[in-house]
Amino acid sequence: MDTIQVQKLVVNFKTLEEFKRFKEYGNQELSMLEDLQSNIIENDSVSPFYGVYYGNALVARMSLYQVSSRYDDYFEPPQDYLELWKLEVLPDYRSKGYGKKLVDFAKSFQLPIKTNPRINSHGFWEKMGFQKAKYDMERDLGENPLIWTPTGVSEKTPSS
Amino acid sequence: MDTIQVQKLVVNFKTLEEFKRFKEYGNQELSMLEDLQSNIIENDSVSPFYGVYYGNALVARMSLYQVSSRYDDYFEPPQDYLELWKLEVLPDYRSKGYGKKLVDFAKSFQLPIKTNPRINSHGFWEKMGFQKAKYDMERDLGENPLIWTPTGVSEKTPSS
Repeated sequence: MDTIQVQKLVVNFKTLEEFKRFKEYGNQELSMLEDLQSNIIENDSVSPFYGVYYGNALVARMSLYQVSSRYDDYFEPPQDYLELWKLEVLPDYRSKGYGKKLVDFAKSFQLPIKTNPRINSHGFWEKMGFQKAKYDMERDLGENPLIWTPTGVSEKTPSS
Repeated sequence: MDTIQVQKLVVNFKTLEEFKRFKEYGNQELSMLEDLQSNIIENDSVSPFYGVYYGNALVARMSLYQVSSRYDDYFEPPQDYLELWKLEVLPDYRSKGYGKKLVDFAKSFQLPIKTNPRINSHGFWEKMGFQKAKYDMERDLGENPLIWTPTGVSEKTPSS
């Protein structure tokens, strides 16, 4: 387990090719590919993705984006927080602690974290110490966000 | 097909019980149930859901929420738009036009519509005339929003 290293991923053709193995490959990856192809971004530009390699293969990844306190509608006091998404471990590499390693890495920034879990992943997130945000329709629009807060931060009480 | 009627759904114990048959049952429904149980809302309050009944059974539904132009970051000129989510037809009732009927109903408001499709539903949305929004990470955070615009409205060009 000590050998699991979380790395910030760079945008290059190799990384984008590896991304295709993940189920949640979508607009975000296509957009990075287009930006790379049209030289809008350079080869090896830093991406919002973090990953774990097993040998030369990318086997787990997540995306992390820091949302400014100006847009914080989840925490008290309002502050910068991390939006975590696309956490995914390739099927053959599950139950080996890769997912936990990524989440622990996200927590290490000591900022609150928000994520929108996939259906059936609640057990995992509960083990990671995440809890359901109180549902607020105008903010959450049918989503089921989960949050994690470091010491000294609490959940905001929805205004409605 | 003419007999398919879209109805605005009310929040009562019968509706909430029917909601349990849908795969995307989640925080939103639980929150409505709690509000009903604690008398925060009245029985038969109007919900953001629209549905189609087959006899006495709710067989298709969607949620629609009108987002204020102040928060519009998708359309040009900025305007009120509809966020459509939880569009779902129960398995035994698929391919009978219920999904299309709900989407047509949403379009009838003549406001632009945004939705975040489930994986593998792109074919359906394309048939409905929706197209991918140009990806903007800070706005879309890894999601793959699809949009539909009525005449005279176009997609906003992302600022980045």
